[in-house]
Amino acid sequence: MIYLDNAATSFPKPKQVYDTIMEAMTEYGANPGRSGHKLALKAGRGIYEARETIAEFFRVKDPMNIIFTHNATDSLNLAIKGILKSGDHVITTSMEHNSVLRPLMALKNKNIEVTIIDCDEQGLIDLKDIEKSIKKNTKMVITTHASNVTGSIMPIYNIGNIAKKHGILYMVDAAQTAGVYDIDVNKNIDLLAFPGHKSLLGPQGTGGLFIREGLELVQLKEGGTGSKSHELIQPLILPDRYESGTPNAPGIIGLGAGVKYIMNEGIENIRNHEVELTEHFIKELLKIDEVMIYGPKNIEKHAPVVSINIENQDSSEVSYLLDSMYNICTRPGLHCAPLAHKTIGTFEQGVVRFSLGLFNTHEEIDETVKAIRAIIKEL
Amino acid sequence: MIYLDNAATSFPKPKQVYDTIMEAMTEYGANPGRSGHKLALKAGRGIYEARETIAEFFRVKDPMNIIFTHNATDSLNLAIKGILKSGDHVITTSMEHNSVLRPLMALKNKNIEVTIIDCDEQGLIDLKDIEKSIKKNTKMVITTHASNVTGSIMPIYNIGNIAKKHGILYMVDAAQTAGVYDIDVNKNIDLLAFPGHKSLLGPQGTGGLFIREGLELVQLKEGGTGSKSHELIQPLILPDRYESGTPNAPGIIGLGAGVKYIMNEGIENIRNHEVELTEHFIKELLKIDEVMIYGPKNIEKHAPVVSINIENQDSSEVSYLLDSMYNICTRPGLHCAPLAHKTIGTFEQGVVRFSLGLFNTHEEIDETVKAIRAIIKEL
Repeated sequence: MIYLDNAATSFPKPKQVYDTIMEAMTEYGANPGRSGHKLALKAGRGIYEARETIAEFFRVKDPMNIIFTHNATDSLNLAIKGILKSGDHVITTSMEHNSVLRPLMALKNKNIEVTIIDCDEQGLIDLKDIEKSIKKNTKMVITTHASNVTGSIMPIYNIGNIAKKHGILYMVDAAQTAGVYDIDVNKNIDLLAFPGHKSLLGPQGTGGLFIREGLELVQLKEGGTGSKSHELIQPLILPDRYESGTPNAPGIIGLGAGVKYIMNEGIENIRNHEVELTEHFIKELLKIDEVMIYGPKNIEKHAPVVSINIENQDSSEVSYLLDSMYNICTRPGLHCAPLAHKTIGTFEQGVVRFSLGLFNTHEEIDETVKAIRAIIKEL
Repeated sequence: MIYLDNAATSFPKPKQVYDTIMEAMTEYGANPGRSGHKLALKAGRGIYEARETIAEFFRVKDPMNIIFTHNATDSLNLAIKGILKSGDHVITTSMEHNSVLRPLMALKNKNIEVTIIDCDEQGLIDLKDIEKSIKKNTKMVITTHASNVTGSIMPIYNIGNIAKKHGILYMVDAAQTAGVYDIDVNKNIDLLAFPGHKSLLGPQGTGGLFIREGLELVQLKEGGTGSKSHELIQPLILPDRYESGTPNAPGIIGLGAGVKYIMNEGIENIRNHEVELTEHFIKELLKIDEVMIYGPKNIEKHAPVVSINIENQDSSEVSYLLDSMYNICTRPGLHCAPLAHKTIGTFEQGVVRFSLGLFNTHEEIDETVKAIRAIIKEL
């Protein structure tokens, strides 16, 4: 089996991640931060260490500014709804995932103004369009770091600079890049939403949000935090304010193991591996006349997500053949990002998405190209 | 080690639960409901089966009315904020956890009126107080099924009857009972919030909410659902409307295995085992003059949660000694339920909570009683 659906969730995870999760569940599966007994303390320490590891990874000074959530969508909702108030204006792009667009559309009913910048056919943004969209009431700019449809990379530090110059907050959705690209939040990123289960190599049921020191968000949820238990109001201390209820302790501890794995491997090595595979894949695909490739051809502007179509063939049909005849896992159709498909002109046809990961090999890419060629012959 | 902190999270889980989670992670760790390849379909089927199992367990006709969440707090916030609107009145009790009280306190600022019924010193409610609290604008009654502090059981079906008679919604917080007590949502329960990681024997990072057929909640979060990807507005179909973003697939599938385990063991057998242990524990504790036991002594009104104090000793100190000298895990202090402690008069001292689970034994209870006696001698 060739797994090329890493943009949905990375698979497999490193053995260390599975082992760490199992150890956390079977050896100290208590509730962290609630009780004071040995098992609870060990679980609490495990979560704290994961928080420290992730903080170091994104160069966050205080681990308490890393909030653990259910998934990146949870992080994005918390940040979007926690920051924006009636009368605010927010700028985003046509390449965003529904996890950004749908919360923003819901806020439109609450007197929040949304500008969606159209990217070009390769999914790339013109920075001037951001400058031009800024108004007096602009509160925040939100962009993905890389499109989940085309892999197009946004120049996040440049966008951060623009936001900073205008005194506006900048949030990055790192769903497709955290764990592959070195992200330094000190370069004008105020909020960074990330999933735990994609390139950070943690399990599903984990995600996070970096909140810049001093930035106050209204919490989406209140509940037990294990802190200030005598009070009926939500404590304002971080991370407790935003982490009500029992956390996914084994999941978070497993995520910590995933990030440690990345740090040991070296993120540059991981990036280089994925760039090499992506470049090779695109190069081979460009040789096939029947294949239409979306997104930039310049690898510097390309995350390891390659979306194609074979002439006018239905993307679901192609993906089905790849799976059923060649055991290659891809994702067809629209990818929860309707405006991105409108931007690149695939709203009707969808695309067949190949998303590469750490454990894919050169040979798997060759086999995939072979399968695509074979399918073209058969269709 | 004797683990008596099952009210915080059950530990250990049945071996089947660990094995199922590991299998889901290592053998089909794809993203369910997004792609159409074999692994994604298998993960999707796993979640569907868990949904079916849990629906059957609570006698819910349509599995789609079971919503998976991050934890019970997540479920409670979704239900409370999804139902209550400006001008509404809601009734709850002094025995509630902060996961109910804190969201309600937050809503007070949004013109929502909250009545908190005082329970008696044993944590028991007078049904007449509910009737008396109902007003024209009362939208919902929310009660716990059993207090996490005293184990006091609320007569949920009677409360449901009262709510129904007055055309009011009734929500049950089953954090301490789901998996031990047979709960039939058809007996006038409109919303049932439950954690996955307590008596349902699933892993942390799982929870759920039953929503009665036809009841519409405003979702707390929007995002990718894998459905209606072409639309910028949140789909209204269940469960998608309330389940944005990648679910905790291995966790949910593990939770399904936990509930299957309970169904195989027989919930009556589990309940009888825990009742027997709780009764035995209370009987032995009643023989110790220095021990103050909170909550009802009548086992019919008592979930397997026993809270005590030893004279005026600090509850944290007692719990610390139990852990450090006798390897017994308990939870001291306030238990995220400040009004419950005011109700039973332990707001200053807190309590030492012993919460029993499926895997505790008669011998463990005897050893615990012995340890309590030894600590009394030493103090």
